[in-house]
This record gives sequence, structure tokens and C-alpha cells, in this order.
Amino acid sequence: MGKTDWKSEAKSLKKELKAMKTAPEAPVKKAKPVSPLAPASFPDLPLVRGASFAAAEAGVKYQNRKDVMLIKLDPGTAMAGTFTRSTTRSACVRDCQQKIALPSKDGAAIIVNSGNSNAFTGKRGEASVKAITEGVAKALGLPASRVFSSSTGVIGEPLPHDKIVAALPTLVDGLTEDAIAMAAQAMMTTDTFPKGAAATIAGEGGPIHIAGIAKGSGMIAPDMATMLVYIFTDAKIPQATLQKLLSRNVDATFNSITVDSDTSTSDTLLLAATGQSDAAEPKGAVLKAFEQALSEVMLNLAHQVIRDGEGATKFVEINVTRAASPDDAARIAFAIANSPLVKTAIAGQDPNWGRIVAAIGKSGAMADRDRLTIKFGDILVAEKGWRNPKYREEDGAAYMLQPELQISVDIGLGRANRKVWTCDLTNRYIEINADYRS
Amino acid sequence: MGKTDWKSEAKSLKKELKAMKTAPEAPVKKAKPVSPLAPASFPDLPLVRGASFAAAEAGVKYQNRKDVMLIKLDPGTAMAGTFTRSTTRSACVRDCQQKIALPSKDGAAIIVNSGNSNAFTGKRGEASVKAITEGVAKALGLPASRVFSSSTGVIGEPLPHDKIVAALPTLVDGLTEDAIAMAAQAMMTTDTFPKGAAATIAGEGGPIHIAGIAKGSGMIAPDMATMLVYIFTDAKIPQATLQKLLSRNVDATFNSITVDSDTSTSDTLLLAATGQSDAAEPKGAVLKAFEQALSEVMLNLAHQVIRDGEGATKFVEINVTRAASPDDAARIAFAIANSPLVKTAIAGQDPNWGRIVAAIGKSGAMADRDRLTIKFGDILVAEKGWRNPKYREEDGAAYMLQPELQISVDIGLGRANRKVWTCDLTNRYIEINADYRS
Repeated sequence: MGKTDWKSEAKSLKKELKAMKTAPEAPVKKAKPVSPLAPASFPDLPLVRGASFAAAEAGVKYQNRKDVMLIKLDPGTAMAGTFTRSTTRSACVRDCQQKIALPSKDGAAIIVNSGNSNAFTGKRGEASVKAITEGVAKALGLPASRVFSSSTGVIGEPLPHDKIVAALPTLVDGLTEDAIAMAAQAMMTTDTFPKGAAATIAGEGGPIHIAGIAKGSGMIAPDMATMLVYIFTDAKIPQATLQKLLSRNVDATFNSITVDSDTSTSDTLLLAATGQSDAAEPKGAVLKAFEQALSEVMLNLAHQVIRDGEGATKFVEINVTRAASPDDAARIAFAIANSPLVKTAIAGQDPNWGRIVAAIGKSGAMADRDRLTIKFGDILVAEKGWRNPKYREEDGAAYMLQPELQISVDIGLGRANRKVWTCDLTNRYIEINADYRS
Repeated sequence: MGKTDWKSEAKSLKKELKAMKTAPEAPVKKAKPVSPLAPASFPDLPLVRGASFAAAEAGVKYQNRKDVMLIKLDPGTAMAGTFTRSTTRSACVRDCQQKIALPSKDGAAIIVNSGNSNAFTGKRGEASVKAITEGVAKALGLPASRVFSSSTGVIGEPLPHDKIVAALPTLVDGLTEDAIAMAAQAMMTTDTFPKGAAATIAGEGGPIHIAGIAKGSGMIAPDMATMLVYIFTDAKIPQATLQKLLSRNVDATFNSITVDSDTSTSDTLLLAATGQSDAAEPKGAVLKAFEQALSEVMLNLAHQVIRDGEGATKFVEINVTRAASPDDAARIAFAIANSPLVKTAIAGQDPNWGRIVAAIGKSGAMADRDRLTIKFGDILVAEKGWRNPKYREEDGAAYMLQPELQISVDIGLGRANRKVWTCDLTNRYIEINADYRS
């Protein structure tokens, strides 16, 4: 036998180790079924130069799984963010809001834990944020004003921040550009799958990459932002432009989804642009393409949150057209999307369009019975204030068997449109939430 | 053996027959369990002179049960009403609204069917209302403008009004002053028990009676009125006063309950004053006592609707105090009462007060984390932006085992208070509503 080729063996071992380190873990509890609406697998996200990721087991609440993740962003990164408007939002959300628009040439960091939301934890919660962000700042040689933290999980319990601080050396040690999937996994709570989405566009001088991750399953009715979402790009974009791009795309994406009408205290969306692409700063047509790609990544992540809605078996698009005003279009769309009676009918695969009529009626928006049109997919169900005479209940019933549904409502009064996305309301939602803390 | 005493036998038979005719029937399906929050029995309602009742089997949708009821009101009766503000409200609601304030010396009638709501039934629905009200008018010798109709049940299906018209002779024949319980029974849909409440006050010259009945279980989030509610009094009260008394008590009673945040297309509350009491027209202190008694009857019926909330196992009072404005107090109270996460936690007997914090936060009302106080019954759970250090989770958990719960939220910002009532959200709600039409 010849000499062992240690080099190639080392290479192969290194590869194996890396694969183990960066692969999404198996679901936390074997008993927890993955949503039937989940994508086939976690997508292959492009590397974003200047962003590196790590996750670790801090034992905040969950045992034997990674529950804290750290993201390091190189100097020159521009940060933008939108946040929940809840008046009882968490200490970390308030802290992020104070820091997000501060000008800085320094790098930045994001630290996220699952298992405890640090919301309604008073002064103690603020002290926890301080301890964590200062710990990260020290470990990475950053000012604390550049460390953004998020916490997700139970509300009102003191956050054991010392456990997170204790995990920092492991986290810093593990930072690598290709561990974004592991970071997505570490922030899951009632989620049944990690969520990721990406896009690549041609910039001037080289490609520009966008990669994003999200968590969210229940307490989903975003208001200005949503859940925990982190999006990264290597584009060279100044902070003010980045914030503008983010803000103007949030209404049609994250602010257009609802699982249960319950707005979270932790909603946080951060967008980081490292500027390390070879491409020049996007302008004109490239900037437009970038915004379009960013918006698609945001919508993709938002849809994945609905696909992982607690107990969901149906992914439902509500498409409201020709309402009297944008506000009316949104009211009608969300009245339908949040109606427990509409959602339970969908769970029962019952084409109960009368409940859609009732939801429109209660929305408070202008509506005229005789101008309404309602469709399931391409099936015309009702128009002119009455059921379409050609509509057959069995067609509606057959349509409802599909896992992805579109309900279209034409108000016929104006020019405002709104699409929102929701899921059905099933026994599983009740089971998950009746014993969430036990 | 002596001669048969035919007279006493006839008397006894008549009594037995009457008892059979007027007793509430057994629940429609034996499998349908009565709500655990139901009162022990239907109350003994006082006769209201000038009002008579009948019920019959018309077979609108349900078989082998009474599904239509008729109420005849003598000449001199003043009518008042409040109705849903839903823009998709039913044809009968619209018809009632047109008639309610018309001056008249004639008697009046109310006809109600269950099994079909005649909502979103277009011109055909309006024709049905016309056929029914004109049929009743003809049968009772009244102008059609004095016949008020209600329909409750599935939305969007044509109402087979001919079946109701065909039942009119039986109904007219059966009219009797003491069949109000049977009328309450005939309008049930998903209700598990008939709902009645009454009060008697001392008028000048004799007693004044109030007796009311209601139906309601799901699609309960009244807006200006609720479900189907009919209240009768023998008081002599002019129409304008009657309407004022009704309107100003509806916010604190029927407009303060919610089962599922879904406002009905059929909500109707009618109050009829026959004027046949021996008492003089109530004025001053008597009028005040009358209003108080009326308000109590309304609140009692509203509470019974919550006690029969679809799938309910808990009756919950949400008591919001010291909000910045009445609108803020209502927003906060309903945000809590309608939160699926709060309602499922209650179903799971979980003292998950963090979800109450989240609901306050999403309400849009002014709130300051550090001024909030939250109590379960007398148990101080949280104050000053943080969990009460003396609060023990096991105390909260023990409290949640009770069937009747009070959640108190003090906002500490102003002087506006609001109480609302709701129930929990259970698997049974999903079961009832996922296959309501099948």
C-alpha cells in the first residue's frame, strides 16, 4: 500500500465537516410535522461577500438545538430596517429603532435568539439588550451602536441574557460566509421549516446578490414590518437609499400577510448592504432591477411565513380589485383574510362564499351589493348582487380541494387594488396555541 | 262508575296540550351537546299583554323542528330597532330599516325564520321579503309596512319563501300569549339553547313587564345591533322615546360582545311596547327604572349569546379601565377579546398574559408599557411594565380552570372604561364551522 494522501484526506474531511456545520438541522422534535405547504427544500442561497454567520446552543429555553445566531457584517455595510408599530414592542426592537439610521463607517452585527422574546420585561429587558449588544460589540471590536439584536419566543419572561453572552465565543469562532441556513434554523420557534430566498441581478461590473432569511408562523399580522427577517446584499447602496427601497416595498410584501391577525411585539426586518460586490453602485435601470429583485425576495419570504402558518393546510391569495380607495381595498382584503369563519370554511374545503360576503360587509369599506363580483380561481361564483346562475356548487367544492387557492373580489366602485395572503384556520392552530407554554 | 267529568277532562287535556305546544323542544340533533356555559333552564318569562306568539315547521332547511315563528302585536304598539351596519346586510334588514320609524296606529307583526338568512340574494331576496311580509299582512289584517321580518342561517342561498307563506295559517292559528319560549326555540341555528330574559318594574298604577328573546352563537361581533333579538314590554312609551332608550343602551350590551369578530349580515334588534300595562306612561324615576331594567334584559341576553358562543367553554369578561379615550378603551378591549392567541390560551387554561400584552400593543390605542396593570380576577399579574414579582404562575393557572373569567387591564392614561364579553376559541368552533353547510 502506498503512503496515505493526508492532504486529500484533510481536504475531504474539511469538506465533510463544513457540510455538517452548515446544513440545516433536523426538525427539533421528531413529532412536529413539517407544514404540508412547505417548499421541497431550503434554497441554495448565494454567498454575500462581507456577511458571515454562526449559530450555537445557548439553552435560552429549547434544549439540544441551536437557539442563538450571530451575523457579522464588514465595515462599509449600510443598514436599513422596519419594525413593528406595536405599543408593547420588545426592548430589542426599541433598541434597534434607535440605532438603525445612525451614520457609521464601522462594521455591524446582528444577534438573534429564539425561545424568549424579551417583550414586556421592563427595565430588566433593557438591561438584557445592553448586556448582549455590549458583549457582541466587545467580542467583535465594534461600537455597541452597531449591534442589532432580536429575540423571539414567549412574552413576559425574563431573558437569561447571561446564557447568550456565554455562547459568544463559540459564535464568533464559528463565523463563516456559508452558514446562513443554520442561522435561519436557529431562530425558529413554532416554525416547521427554515425560510430563505435569494436573487442575483447583473450590476455594472459584476453580479449583485441578495439573500434573505425569515422566521414566522403564528402571531402574524405585520404592521410596518414583520416577524424576524434579515436580508443581505453585496450591493453598494447608501443607507438613505437602502431604507427608502425597503420601506416602499414592505406594504405589498410583509404588510400583506396574516396568519391570525395578531401583530407581534418582536417584528423586525433588517436589510444589510455590504457593498462588496464588484458591481458599481446601482443607478437607473440597475437600481430598478435591484428594487424589483429585493421586492421579490421579500414577497417570497412573506409567502413562506404563510406556508408555515400555524396549522395551515391551505395557502390563500385574496385579490381585491376596484375598491373605492387603497385603504378600503386593504380593509376588505384583511377582513376576508382574518375572518375566522372564512378561514374555517377553507379548512373544511367548503366553498362558503356567503362568509366572504359577510366579511366584505363588516369591513367598514364602501361596497355595493349589486356591483360585487366574487371568484374562486377562474370560477365566477357571484355577481350583480346574486349567485351566478351558472355557478355549480360542485365546481366550487372541487376547487377548494387544492392546497393553493385564489379568492378574487371585485368591488366595482373605484381603482384601488390589494393582494394579501393568508392560510386556513384548523384544529392544529388551536392545539399549537392552547398549549404553547406547557 | 259515575259519569265521566268531560269538562275537567277537557280542561286537563287542554292544559297538557298547551304545555306541549309552548314548551321548548328538545335540541334538534341529539348529538349536539348543550354549551357547558348554558343557564340551568329557560327562564319563566312574564306575559306581555298585547303580544302573542306562534311557531311552526316550514321546512326552510331544517327538518322535523319548528323553524319559523310569528309574533303579533296589538294596535297601539310602538316599535324601535337597531340593525347591523354591514354593507352586505340582508334584504329583510334593509326592509325593517325602512319601516321602523314610520308612524302608525296599527298593530304590528314580526316573522322570523331560521335555516336561511336571505342575505346576498339580490332582487330575488327583496321579492322574498315582499311575499312574506305581504302574506303576514293579509293574514293578520295589517298594512305590510307594519310587518317586520328576519331571516337567519346560510348566506347567499335563495330563500324558499313559499314554504314560509304556506305555514302562515298554522302560525296565525297557533298565536298565544304564552308561547314566547317556543318562538325563541324556532329561531335557533347553531345555538345550543334558547335565550330569554325578563324584568318587571313598578309603574304608576301597575307593574310594567319586559320580556326578551335572542338567538346567536357564531358570526357574533355586533355593530349597532346584534343577531336576532326581540324584546317586548307592555309599557306605554311613545316611539321616539322607545328608540332613544334602545339606541343608547346598545353599545354597553350587544355592541360589547364578540364570539369571533365576524359581524353578521342579519343583526336585528326589535323592541315592541304594546302599551297595555295598567301603568301610566313611565316618566321621571319610573322611566329611569324602566331604562335600567331594559338595559339589564339586553345585557342578560347578550351574555347568553356569549355563553352559547360556538365551541365555548369559558365566559370571559374583559374590563379595560383608564384608557385615553372611549374609542381607545373599546379598541383595546376588542383587540384582546378578538385575539385568536388570547382565546386559544384561555381554551388551554393557560394564564398566558404575554398575549394580552401583545393584543394591547397591536390595538392601535395609546398605551404605555410602564403604566399597564393586568389582573386575572383579583390576581395582580403585571404592573409597571413588568411581571408582578409576587405573581406565581400556579395561581394564574388555578384561576384559569374556572368557567367564568375576568381579565382586567388598567391603562393608567385617562378616564375611559369599557367592558366587553367574549368566549374562548376551541377545536369545537373549528369543527362547527369547517362543515357548517355539509
